[in-house]
Amino acid sequence: MEPRISLITLGVDDLERSRRFYAEGLGFPAHYTAGEGILFFRTRGTRLALYPREQLAKDISPRLLGKGSGFPGITLAHNTREKAEVDAILARAEAAGGTLIKPAAETFWGGYSGYFADPDGHLWEVAWAAFWRFDEQGALVLD
Amino acid sequence: MEPRISLITLGVDDLERSRRFYAEGLGFPAHYTAGEGILFFRTRGTRLALYPREQLAKDISPRLLGKGSGFPGITLAHNTREKAEVDAILARAEAAGGTLIKPAAETFWGGYSGYFADPDGHLWEVAWAAFWRFDEQGALVLD
Repeated sequence: MEPRISLITLGVDDLERSRRFYAEGLGFPAHYTAGEGILFFRTRGTRLALYPREQLAKDISPRLLGKGSGFPGITLAHNTREKAEVDAILARAEAAGGTLIKPAAETFWGGYSGYFADPDGHLWEVAWAAFWRFDEQGALVLD
Repeated sequence: MEPRISLITLGVDDLERSRRFYAEGLGFPAHYTAGEGILFFRTRGTRLALYPREQLAKDISPRLLGKGSGFPGITLAHNTREKAEVDAILARAEAAGGTLIKPAAETFWGGYSGYFADPDGHLWEVAWAAFWRFDEQGALVLD
């Protein structure tokens, strides 16, 4: 496992309001495809993503939906170069004392991903997709 | 403001348990100084830090202490090269619709820092310290 956080995803209530805050307010370079329902920023190294909070919860587990579920609304992601790494890393995290939250499976966006929680419940997605590329530092290419 | 997340800090209940999980379990290279009470990892690009959850809450605002405070236990940080950038970025975030959570002030660890919340309440620290150095990609040097 490369020591890298590929992506931080913030669950948001209003994607357009948050886009304005980060893109226009703070000046972060946005990478946006209309209608995709997710917004990426070309932050250096670890990328930042905004995604509707309820959708983010649903993608992980129905148990995280609704107020009072304890869902912190923020996830870290480790994106792999090979598909087989996803299961290997989830197994490694479980062996190390983490909790498997969602076993790896094909996703609606064409990737393969699963989630573990660290000993304090912080959520990590481990994900692979054939169409992802990495720059020379290992950061996700967004173009 | 450079488009960069310098640091992700995870609030943890047991620093040693979490150190074992990330350093031994996942194999992340740790940067640890005994007795400092905070643990950094040399993740590429954005660095990862572990810090006791209650201490993290206290450093931001006493309102975040205790269960039920809504504190998500995770913060993002943007570290600046110049001290004056801290106030400028906090002002910019507020003007963009963010909320000033903690005005910039000298910290107990020798830096200068403040916090804002984005429109969904996600917490960002904006921080400067004279002793920090940055690599050619702008990532914090940990040595």
